[in-house]
Amino acid sequence: MTTKYNNVYIDSTYTICGNYENDGPLSEYFDKKYEKDLYFGEKSWEKAEVHLLKEANSNLIKKAKLKEEDIDLLISGDLQNQIAASDYMAREFNIPFLGIFEACATIGEAILLGSTFIEGKFAKKVLVSTSSHNMAAEKQFRNPTEYGTPKPKTATFTVTGSASILLTNKKSKIRVESTTIGKVKDLGITDVNNMGAVMAPAAADVIYNHLKDTKREINYYDLVLTGDLGIYGKNILKDYMMSSYNIDLSKNYNDCGTMIYDLDNQPVLAGGSGPSCSALVTFGYIYKEMLKGTYKKVLIVPTGAIFSPTFTFQKESIPCMANAISLEVVV
Amino acid sequence: MTTKYNNVYIDSTYTICGNYENDGPLSEYFDKKYEKDLYFGEKSWEKAEVHLLKEANSNLIKKAKLKEEDIDLLISGDLQNQIAASDYMAREFNIPFLGIFEACATIGEAILLGSTFIEGKFAKKVLVSTSSHNMAAEKQFRNPTEYGTPKPKTATFTVTGSASILLTNKKSKIRVESTTIGKVKDLGITDVNNMGAVMAPAAADVIYNHLKDTKREINYYDLVLTGDLGIYGKNILKDYMMSSYNIDLSKNYNDCGTMIYDLDNQPVLAGGSGPSCSALVTFGYIYKEMLKGTYKKVLIVPTGAIFSPTFTFQKESIPCMANAISLEVVV
Repeated sequence: MTTKYNNVYIDSTYTICGNYENDGPLSEYFDKKYEKDLYFGEKSWEKAEVHLLKEANSNLIKKAKLKEEDIDLLISGDLQNQIAASDYMAREFNIPFLGIFEACATIGEAILLGSTFIEGKFAKKVLVSTSSHNMAAEKQFRNPTEYGTPKPKTATFTVTGSASILLTNKKSKIRVESTTIGKVKDLGITDVNNMGAVMAPAAADVIYNHLKDTKREINYYDLVLTGDLGIYGKNILKDYMMSSYNIDLSKNYNDCGTMIYDLDNQPVLAGGSGPSCSALVTFGYIYKEMLKGTYKKVLIVPTGAIFSPTFTFQKESIPCMANAISLEVVV
Repeated sequence: MTTKYNNVYIDSTYTICGNYENDGPLSEYFDKKYEKDLYFGEKSWEKAEVHLLKEANSNLIKKAKLKEEDIDLLISGDLQNQIAASDYMAREFNIPFLGIFEACATIGEAILLGSTFIEGKFAKKVLVSTSSHNMAAEKQFRNPTEYGTPKPKTATFTVTGSASILLTNKKSKIRVESTTIGKVKDLGITDVNNMGAVMAPAAADVIYNHLKDTKREINYYDLVLTGDLGIYGKNILKDYMMSSYNIDLSKNYNDCGTMIYDLDNQPVLAGGSGPSCSALVTFGYIYKEMLKGTYKKVLIVPTGAIFSPTFTFQKESIPCMANAISLEVVV
């Protein structure tokens, strides 16, 4: 389902990263960096993630010179069970709240929902946010890191960080031009250590549908950016798009998971993942490069494996989601 | 945040219940009943819940004489970690999907999001659904029932069932008149066996804001219906509304959790809870009574404790949410 917007703008963004991301090549683009450990002064990793998310939203409200009561709506989601980071963040804000879950694709759903409220004139200012925390995610989805479980090179590394984006109906330098809502895809893969392969079909489907619905060619965009396929998933997507849809991703395509770390020198295997991976790369790095004019039209495609460990233990395969969001420099 | 709609109608609904709900006083209102066990032919409770949700959506599409491609958007959420029941349901439908999480308040968020897409002319037909499964929820949130852990009388009993609602821009007999999005409330209560007390402040806040925003008195509505406060929470809400807002709930107020079971004769403690509690009572019983003309204006207020067991173990209190949805018989 594709929707074009005429009145949805990005007012401002705020991004925070942890130490691994601070050691990566995009560090200078993030508004705040934690360099020491992953606790940020809190007593647990889960609370540390709430801390990140609260800080991103508070600091963005300050940066935009607004007060809580100026914001109509807060939309947030994350990877914790019961999206706990978002729930426990939201109790600190006196703003109407909507909780969403789409795993690592969360920021796409958040942006398209916020855009729907603004374009429909139901809200004027919508704050959307997401987060992830490497240790909170490892503990919940994989094995406690103390076990030292070896991982295959197709595994990805959950990004620690948070991103907050203020959407508005007031004209700014960058707008949300259109969005395409994706469908859940499941090609029967059960390997939780190869999420790139799992998610590629969902990304392919939504990119194809976005181009079809908008009657655009892939080179309409200066850049097409998937969320967290990693180095192997990225190549799978390129092959899959060519063989299934005859769409050539060799020129203007990249994946946030392969950009946020120095893959040669950091211990991150196939690259970054988690809701804050695409959110940090897009609304830290790409957003600021768009403001400079480096890119004018960008299609972001946050990707998410919306599986449950309970179902994986019951031998079920892994369903995935992706949405497409077209960002455009306002001329 | 309150929004009034002019073009959002309920086309039809489909509800399914398990054996405990079938033994309750509202059984005749549900479209399908499972009487034997809680597996429904599946190998796990989690898969049994997916079965319920898939069946409610499939059967509603059939009942409405539509095909999957006629539906623009599917919005769903549930209580399982990663809203797994909704994710694994959605992979069976070739419909753009949005996953949401608001625990037992899910159906409220689903209805207001679907209404936003329709009123804004972004979609014509939106399917929204939710589910819960007693055993899947007990296993995840409380103790495996095999332990036989005793519970205090303030504890509630998770409803097994699913509900699917088709929202449309085509005029029908009942419309979504307005909605108010609630804020996360946390008054510092940590007792997971007294959710009614925990959730009452969230319900009170959104009812108060809904009446203020719409400039209505409480007796504007034939019926005000909270989601799953149970017998103790219901009384707390009445007291709280009177003492905090001087609003009298003694005449036209009830709680779905106290209606779905025979509280005197079924082993359900303070009443029903779970996302399907308010969804079944509202879109099975109340919806059909509205079609008959018993009620003309109903305010439903699905309530949810959006806590995480991980945070409860870390001694955190329980945040809650509620949204208000005004349903009206079309004259």
